[in-house]
Amino acid sequence: MYILLTIAYDGTSYCGWQRQKNGIAVQQIIEEALESLFKSSFSITGASRTDARVHALGQKAGFTTDKCVIPLSKLPQVLNTILPEDIKILCAEEKEKDFHPRFHAKVKTYEYRIQNTPYPWPQLRNFSYHIPYKLDFDSMREASACFKGTHDFKAFCATGGSAKTTVRTIYQIELTKNENNIITLVLKGNGFLYNMVRIIAGTLAYVGQGKIAPGYIPAIIATGRRSLGGITAPPQGLTLLNVEY
Amino acid sequence: MYILLTIAYDGTSYCGWQRQKNGIAVQQIIEEALESLFKSSFSITGASRTDARVHALGQKAGFTTDKCVIPLSKLPQVLNTILPEDIKILCAEEKEKDFHPRFHAKVKTYEYRIQNTPYPWPQLRNFSYHIPYKLDFDSMREASACFKGTHDFKAFCATGGSAKTTVRTIYQIELTKNENNIITLVLKGNGFLYNMVRIIAGTLAYVGQGKIAPGYIPAIIATGRRSLGGITAPPQGLTLLNVEY
Repeated sequence: MYILLTIAYDGTSYCGWQRQKNGIAVQQIIEEALESLFKSSFSITGASRTDARVHALGQKAGFTTDKCVIPLSKLPQVLNTILPEDIKILCAEEKEKDFHPRFHAKVKTYEYRIQNTPYPWPQLRNFSYHIPYKLDFDSMREASACFKGTHDFKAFCATGGSAKTTVRTIYQIELTKNENNIITLVLKGNGFLYNMVRIIAGTLAYVGQGKIAPGYIPAIIATGRRSLGGITAPPQGLTLLNVEY
Repeated sequence: MYILLTIAYDGTSYCGWQRQKNGIAVQQIIEEALESLFKSSFSITGASRTDARVHALGQKAGFTTDKCVIPLSKLPQVLNTILPEDIKILCAEEKEKDFHPRFHAKVKTYEYRIQNTPYPWPQLRNFSYHIPYKLDFDSMREASACFKGTHDFKAFCATGGSAKTTVRTIYQIELTKNENNIITLVLKGNGFLYNMVRIIAGTLAYVGQGKIAPGYIPAIIATGRRSLGGITAPPQGLTLLNVEY
């Protein structure tokens, strides 16, 4: 049987989702918890290889097992007693035998949070990108709309990714600002290139600072040149919200 | 001159606002930062003595000094370079010589956050009270309205407080729930007794669980008996939002 887990984590203390030589990965911690419960070795596959300090509320990861040692509905509760407090399982469900969390993913949703205040709130230090200078929110919103649709996002992709094509579709992009000047970017798409959300967030921050005009975004996309965009915004602002199949 | 600071902190690692024999207090960290900047000993007075693990976005604390060694508008920025990342100064302003941050406070606003989900989100573990069983939000909201106004809040006060009277006025009480089942209680009043917000939050949680009927709240207030209310909700859900003068 194939078991798919929905996982939330505070990525602050981890080197990312995937096992690395240096540092502790979220994947490793969950595999170790499964191993101590099932008394056998485990290898789980995640839907998204989130980077160091990136968070998740709805990461998906799965594994094949002969049988589940405890009722599936109880699995999150039992695993959560073993897991540290910065990683929790929210759901466990059975999927068809040949299910693949990454290849079968249809829609992924990411959130990127910017705190636009003179001084940073300590509570958000691990969960946002603090920008002290005033951002022009209307320009950022205007620019954000340009990303919607199917485009070649080569200009918004870091080197090091393994994608065969850089064409992706963004179904929805929302930029909101609350009364405390927390700007939240939510992106829903069929897939995202390596660092794509963080480069879009960094480019929108440049637009907010007046370094890039909103009308210039389609041209950046068209040229495919990474150097024309903004910085790669820091990892702690990013959260993988959801993966849909 | 009297200088009043507005302070934000993540209280997770501290024994509270006030200096204690065991543990490190927020007050102490700020005093040490001021001492290293002003090269003299410092004693600051806070508006609210928040408990261990309680947070603040708008704590106020002040001190008297002959002169400020740097322009007042630059003081937050300079202090923030000395302070750890879980304590930040948001504002520094001059007040009249006989100003007192606690005695002169007219309105205080607190927030208490409950996460009502089957499993806790790691991101909120230090900033909310996780309740896994389903809470009846409408009953909680009905109950919350009973606290508004001027009452003797003896039943909602822990022993150990130093208040002369237990009569307080709550100007505003708001209970909201977002799409992720995060319930937020915001209380605005002329002052709060020791643990008062946490006991109100714990009592509302009891109402949500059906352990206390909403219509029973006025009777609990009237009897003044602490034992009739709910538990004292845990500290990490509480944030001091603001102090007004």
